[in-house]
Amino acid sequence: MYEIEKIFNRIIQRVNINLRDLTFDVSPFVKDHINLEKMSEFYAFYGITADIPLNLKFIHSGLAGSYFLGNCRISDSLLYKSDIRGDELKRKGDTFQYKHFSIDLAKDELIDIETSALIKTLVHNYSHDPETPERFFIKDTLALDYSNIHGAPSDGCFLGSFATIDLTTMRDCVIGPYSYIQAGEINHLNVEPGTIWVNSPGQFNFLYQYPTKRLKQYIHCSPEKGPTGLLIDFIEARKDAFNTIFDAANLEDTIKVPENASLDRYAVVLPSTTISENVLVAQRAYLENSYLGRGANAQEHCFIINSRLEGGNVTAHGAKIIEADLDEGVFVGFNSFLFGKPEHRLIIGKGCVIMPHTIIDSEETLSIPQDTLVWGLVTNQQELQENSISLENLKKIETHTNQGNMFFEGSGSTFVQAFKDRIQHILEVNGAFFHEHNNNVKGHAQNNRKLSLNNIQPFLFGNMQGVYPDITILP
Amino acid sequence: MYEIEKIFNRIIQRVNINLRDLTFDVSPFVKDHINLEKMSEFYAFYGITADIPLNLKFIHSGLAGSYFLGNCRISDSLLYKSDIRGDELKRKGDTFQYKHFSIDLAKDELIDIETSALIKTLVHNYSHDPETPERFFIKDTLALDYSNIHGAPSDGCFLGSFATIDLTTMRDCVIGPYSYIQAGEINHLNVEPGTIWVNSPGQFNFLYQYPTKRLKQYIHCSPEKGPTGLLIDFIEARKDAFNTIFDAANLEDTIKVPENASLDRYAVVLPSTTISENVLVAQRAYLENSYLGRGANAQEHCFIINSRLEGGNVTAHGAKIIEADLDEGVFVGFNSFLFGKPEHRLIIGKGCVIMPHTIIDSEETLSIPQDTLVWGLVTNQQELQENSISLENLKKIETHTNQGNMFFEGSGSTFVQAFKDRIQHILEVNGAFFHEHNNNVKGHAQNNRKLSLNNIQPFLFGNMQGVYPDITILP
Repeated sequence: MYEIEKIFNRIIQRVNINLRDLTFDVSPFVKDHINLEKMSEFYAFYGITADIPLNLKFIHSGLAGSYFLGNCRISDSLLYKSDIRGDELKRKGDTFQYKHFSIDLAKDELIDIETSALIKTLVHNYSHDPETPERFFIKDTLALDYSNIHGAPSDGCFLGSFATIDLTTMRDCVIGPYSYIQAGEINHLNVEPGTIWVNSPGQFNFLYQYPTKRLKQYIHCSPEKGPTGLLIDFIEARKDAFNTIFDAANLEDTIKVPENASLDRYAVVLPSTTISENVLVAQRAYLENSYLGRGANAQEHCFIINSRLEGGNVTAHGAKIIEADLDEGVFVGFNSFLFGKPEHRLIIGKGCVIMPHTIIDSEETLSIPQDTLVWGLVTNQQELQENSISLENLKKIETHTNQGNMFFEGSGSTFVQAFKDRIQHILEVNGAFFHEHNNNVKGHAQNNRKLSLNNIQPFLFGNMQGVYPDITILP
Repeated sequence: MYEIEKIFNRIIQRVNINLRDLTFDVSPFVKDHINLEKMSEFYAFYGITADIPLNLKFIHSGLAGSYFLGNCRISDSLLYKSDIRGDELKRKGDTFQYKHFSIDLAKDELIDIETSALIKTLVHNYSHDPETPERFFIKDTLALDYSNIHGAPSDGCFLGSFATIDLTTMRDCVIGPYSYIQAGEINHLNVEPGTIWVNSPGQFNFLYQYPTKRLKQYIHCSPEKGPTGLLIDFIEARKDAFNTIFDAANLEDTIKVPENASLDRYAVVLPSTTISENVLVAQRAYLENSYLGRGANAQEHCFIINSRLEGGNVTAHGAKIIEADLDEGVFVGFNSFLFGKPEHRLIIGKGCVIMPHTIIDSEETLSIPQDTLVWGLVTNQQELQENSISLENLKKIETHTNQGNMFFEGSGSTFVQAFKDRIQHILEVNGAFFHEHNNNVKGHAQNNRKLSLNNIQPFLFGNMQGVYPDITILP
């Protein structure tokens, strides 16, 4: 048996042992859908920059097409075209504030991936778990295509396609496809597909459940066919553009990028696109015929097509914006699919918050008034009414409310404030507020200008084919 | 000051301290001729193959364009387009026979390069020093363009351009340009340019001295101009072909290579060239319109142009063969320059031995009879007579002889036998004798088919520009 098969089988066994209480077997979801032969076809790469500590350790793993930044250790794992971004990890000497605890850090935080398989997964941010502030672990975990593990230590879990775990420590959980969970800490849960859950115990609790049948046409995971649906088709149709970018040794600059903005070498940019000051375009982002105003950002796996973003916009990991006009400060959450049509564009007003994992796919022109929160599945004007609320009205809620499949309890104003704070923070770290005369507001957009990318490659022959040598990289 | 300058200055100081007895200052030879800015322009690469232990350690060094294979540690050093080939290192468990000593090896031999600068230098083979069988060290040493350090541990030395140290441990020595030394052990010597010296104490001693003035037109090193001369011009004129090869991410196969032969991905092959079975073409070899017969080899930095090699030929590191016809089994030593002309080809008979660092540059057609030893500078028929001897006659010498600038003492037959044994060994390890039904005679030509090449890259910005991260690579 090839070594890479042994690594894979051991991961599957570890995950299944962890999920035995849920009687969940991951094998059928992966056995036929992960092609181990592909593991030797792609090089991996890592970033070097003066601003982020460099400390990479790869042990007995396959890393095909994956990207690493910062302080990361990968052992006995298979990473396929995944992004492990340690640019927001906590540093030695920092103080991590968790409620009334001030936690001093004795060492740099480490992303520690062990006996896990991550397929096209984004790992980012830092561990928000006060129990493990210096180690953002991902252990005995299997994550499928386009899942996000965001500030979320994980032990013994399975994430379906397009699942996002955000600022949540999870143990022995199954997260269904297209579910978004932000809940502090979860254990032994089997989360249904299309569950959108934002819970801050004692403060607020937001829950939306996608209608199962209708979600299937967008994304569905079956043991027989693997991940299918419109979201997969949409990405597949644009795959070739990425192949061109990853195959090329050197690329010509296709557009002008202002000095304070950064465009990753592994992003696709098609004409005619404009990148303004303080814009950040991450690797694996896809821009086509769009305008990105000052301080807008386009994160990993996002698609922005025939659209206009006026500035200060967040396009979170995996969000897709097509045929849309977004006014200033619009936030589009993880994996949202804003599917405007050429004849029926989608208009989103200033300061709107599009919740993570929102799908807007309408055959009529929709116009969302400014400062509106939108969630769930919206295919027409009526559903937009059902699945949205003005921030003004949301703030007034002090007990609970429900609209359609959405249930909310707790303090609406705390919820809105939490979101606004976070958006502010995201814009800040991405460098949206940079001014020439104030270095304190430098962010990724400015720092990534000085990011260089280096490659590493696997064994190409024999029993170890597709596995990488054990490589340690220090400054 | 940039880190790379600090590394460089420290090396220069270390070498000068070692050479203080010879009152030799290396600074003027390198200060203006080594462009530190170029150190960040090229990636380095390393080979992975099942047949050779993988154990690479790079510490605080610049590695621009260099190549590594096997068990190597590079620290506080600058390597520019150098080849560090650890494919013939001794292995743990081997017994190294030195005269009547049988030395058991407790660990794999390591090429250990420390505080040294190597410019376009080839490091190959293994330590022939019985005092240091497990560590082939190169320490406090500076080697200029196209020098060869072949099985030769070195401490505190300076090698001029095209100098070769072969199977010789050296301490605190200056080796002049185009000198070839094979002498077991040397200390505190300042070897004049163009000295060809093969010494086996108690057995034989071969010494030839190039006429200084005439050598200068081929190769000369001055503090003002650096290395100059016909040899440098010859290589410079063909530089672009290599740039094309090193810049390309993927190359199309230009010629058919038999299954049992190997053509390195970083060799230049121009039409119309034929590669026969069991042929080995190493990286940085240049082949143009030539025929390489069965089991011939073309080693690093060699050029074979408009020539025909019938088979079983050795073209050692840096040898150049132009407009020549070599019969079977002809050996052409390190850095030889066989400069035939289209209208006056050079004909070399079966079994001839062209000594390392031989220059044949004639305006008349020369034909060298079979089984002849040739050395030194040959520009016409008369000089060929003076600088050659039939192996038959050489074998008869039991005391001493001299011809022109050549002096020989000791046993001619032992000298011839030593050469013949070595040629046989070289052909063997290179895989020239491979037959499909006998795996025991596999060599580099067969094994290199399964060699994969991986890249590593330096810091591209800031104070560390051109220095590589500290990288450890293990299987």
